[in-house]
Amino acid sequence: MDKNIPYKTYLSEDEMPRQWYNMRADMKNKPAPLLNPGTHKPMTAEELSVVFCDELVQQELDNTTAYIDIPQEILDFYKMYRPSPLVRAYCLEKVLDTPAKIYYKFEGNNTSGSHKLNSAIAQAYYAKKQGLKGVTTETGAGQWGTALSMACAYLGLDCKVFMVKVSYEQKPFRREVMRTYGASVTPSPSETTEVGKRILAAHPGTTGSLGCAISEAVEVAVGSEGYRYVLGSVLNQVLLHQSIIGLETHAAFKKLGVKPDVIIGCAGGGSNLGGLISPFMGEKLRGEADYRIIAVEPASCPSFTRGKYAYDFCDTGMVCPLAKMYTLGSNFIPSANHAGGLRYHGMSSTLSQLYADGLMEAVSVEQTSVFAAAEQFARTEGILPAPESSHAIRAAINEALRCKQTGEEETIVFGLTGTGYFDMVAYQKYNDGVMSDYIPTDEEIAESLSKLPKID
Amino acid sequence: MDKNIPYKTYLSEDEMPRQWYNMRADMKNKPAPLLNPGTHKPMTAEELSVVFCDELVQQELDNTTAYIDIPQEILDFYKMYRPSPLVRAYCLEKVLDTPAKIYYKFEGNNTSGSHKLNSAIAQAYYAKKQGLKGVTTETGAGQWGTALSMACAYLGLDCKVFMVKVSYEQKPFRREVMRTYGASVTPSPSETTEVGKRILAAHPGTTGSLGCAISEAVEVAVGSEGYRYVLGSVLNQVLLHQSIIGLETHAAFKKLGVKPDVIIGCAGGGSNLGGLISPFMGEKLRGEADYRIIAVEPASCPSFTRGKYAYDFCDTGMVCPLAKMYTLGSNFIPSANHAGGLRYHGMSSTLSQLYADGLMEAVSVEQTSVFAAAEQFARTEGILPAPESSHAIRAAINEALRCKQTGEEETIVFGLTGTGYFDMVAYQKYNDGVMSDYIPTDEEIAESLSKLPKID
Repeated sequence: MDKNIPYKTYLSEDEMPRQWYNMRADMKNKPAPLLNPGTHKPMTAEELSVVFCDELVQQELDNTTAYIDIPQEILDFYKMYRPSPLVRAYCLEKVLDTPAKIYYKFEGNNTSGSHKLNSAIAQAYYAKKQGLKGVTTETGAGQWGTALSMACAYLGLDCKVFMVKVSYEQKPFRREVMRTYGASVTPSPSETTEVGKRILAAHPGTTGSLGCAISEAVEVAVGSEGYRYVLGSVLNQVLLHQSIIGLETHAAFKKLGVKPDVIIGCAGGGSNLGGLISPFMGEKLRGEADYRIIAVEPASCPSFTRGKYAYDFCDTGMVCPLAKMYTLGSNFIPSANHAGGLRYHGMSSTLSQLYADGLMEAVSVEQTSVFAAAEQFARTEGILPAPESSHAIRAAINEALRCKQTGEEETIVFGLTGTGYFDMVAYQKYNDGVMSDYIPTDEEIAESLSKLPKID
Repeated sequence: MDKNIPYKTYLSEDEMPRQWYNMRADMKNKPAPLLNPGTHKPMTAEELSVVFCDELVQQELDNTTAYIDIPQEILDFYKMYRPSPLVRAYCLEKVLDTPAKIYYKFEGNNTSGSHKLNSAIAQAYYAKKQGLKGVTTETGAGQWGTALSMACAYLGLDCKVFMVKVSYEQKPFRREVMRTYGASVTPSPSETTEVGKRILAAHPGTTGSLGCAISEAVEVAVGSEGYRYVLGSVLNQVLLHQSIIGLETHAAFKKLGVKPDVIIGCAGGGSNLGGLISPFMGEKLRGEADYRIIAVEPASCPSFTRGKYAYDFCDTGMVCPLAKMYTLGSNFIPSANHAGGLRYHGMSSTLSQLYADGLMEAVSVEQTSVFAAAEQFARTEGILPAPESSHAIRAAINEALRCKQTGEEETIVFGLTGTGYFDMVAYQKYNDGVMSDYIPTDEEIAESLSKLPKID
């Protein structure tokens, strides 16, 4: 091992970042604004504040303030599970026999099991501060719902989670974690909302979808006194809160005297990737340093690598604002055989603009190769990774093997967003050799993209 | 918060202990030796080495060496998930409104989910060093089996786990974690061993027991070239390896300039408690300091508080050596409604001797009160605790509430041995209000104790 590089680097509490960093402030080409789905005009703060908390609306629309103070209450909460360690993957390097130096920022050491808690506590805090009674949200795989439940339990805020019915039934343990934190969890579609009733009437046997759950959560938030809706990815405000990941990573590397060459993150809606890369991208935008930045997405849902940069609906129900992003079309449905998250049809507007401007790369990886990487990582580094995070592991291993070929001693860092303890059904499929890959055809993607909304 | 006490205290890698501490060296009254079940004479190293690795036999029998070097390979493995944090439970203190200062040593930040990994890697290492092909073991709740699978994957050692059939079927996700680490997992009783066949013939519908799984694992180890059997608790060697928990805790307190008054740990076979208390008990044994030390056991399996200090079989199959310990009788079976681990009928010989000598206290707590504490802890401190660990949380909260009554500013530390991510069936019962308590009657315990072996 390198003499001056420990296995794990923790910042002290004094060294923890006290401000979030807003990449948009340093972007020459700002991300395109959200549009009102009716008028196609930029959404105003007033329009957005029907759905979101006031302070979060400000953060969503603020493209100019680079640093925003993290409120003391959130800093205190962060101290319960942060700083997260920056880990040197000595064992993985040895097994790969690579000259590359591999690091990962591990966000799984908290009960929600992922980085989602970083934004959940922020959003719950602003809801509490506004004097609200509670928040609503949707959850698919369940990590976001769990994180929000934890944050609300801590602040004494009511939390109503609409969980995609198929997940509600197939992931009862995720559901029980949320219930233990006092959240109400409703399988979606449900009879508790108008949109749910309508969908159930039209499709009696449906097992639900994320788009439908979003519609139910928004309906309840808008229709209930003292409630707002919160979302765990895609939005600018979420990337802002998640910048804590990148800021800690940046500070830890500085402490070690190391500069990474390649920064890798998995990308579904972009919350982890956007957070991890933010201070590095900031240096790149300001011309202070250069890094290769790689987004990794599943081959079954390849919005960056095969999607179109265009305005689209954020939800399948087409009730939410329009966002300009790399999208596969809001009615694109990833193959059911895809095991992990990262199933979102679109991508963060901010990351989309950065990708369009050539400031980052994107690759897609197939499911079985992702689980092969996950297994290798688990056996050598000890941590059982979430399927989502394992996309980044796959890409990092690929980069390390490239370095083995070329002899380059590059420093690679990737985001290990969470643990796979609630994803053992997928691991079982892999262990039993019955997991398969699915790559959408060009025709399927073209068909889905043909239904994009027409924006002047 | 106290100005000089952070939420979490981590030792640096340089500050990590490099030796295990063997409490027995400082005990005036040594723990009673294991006896051969046939001759009733103390087991010799030669007899033990048929079942256990040679170096582990030496550790098992060594009552005089106080400090034993941790091999470099084990230190390196420890660095992947240790040091574990010593956490100040500021949020819990606030919710309880207590003048007590509460700390916990959290061992759950690794994929096995508990402290078991500390001994698993040590036992696997010595097996590897002896040139063995693999090891066998049994697992009930599954934490030990998972830990051993991880350690064996890391060292490239074969790992055969006999998992109590009811757990194998009801906890498929634990099983899949072990398989992901490359272990073979066999439901016990099985047709793969003579003892398994015999038991299946006699009890065709049996769902298995820990005692039966031990017998199968021992049979396979003894009958296979290059294999030995390993055990995750009870034994002296296990307490020795687990002393890393206490040594880190002791060093972290020293760094903070804090001396704890009360030290609390849950107790099943005693591996966590014995490890946590070791350096503190050492000071107590040497007359250098005093501490209240409290073992917490389930009211449904109260070996310390209602058992007898006598020689008994370690397994229900009565093939293993006899140990002198607080026991409820080797045929005592805790109520099936008990949700967590801590179901062992006996207790570590070392802890039993310390308890007999009045050097520690013991309390028993009821299941529903344990889950109430677990829920309160999860909601305030964020971590979803294992049911086993939650016994210690219950006792720590009780002590903190006592301090609230008396106004005493005592410092309490407890061992948070692991996470409850694979125990959600039990949490669901608690969430649904259908969990109940069970306390064995005096008659049941007397009946079980009437069958203790007669030792001259």
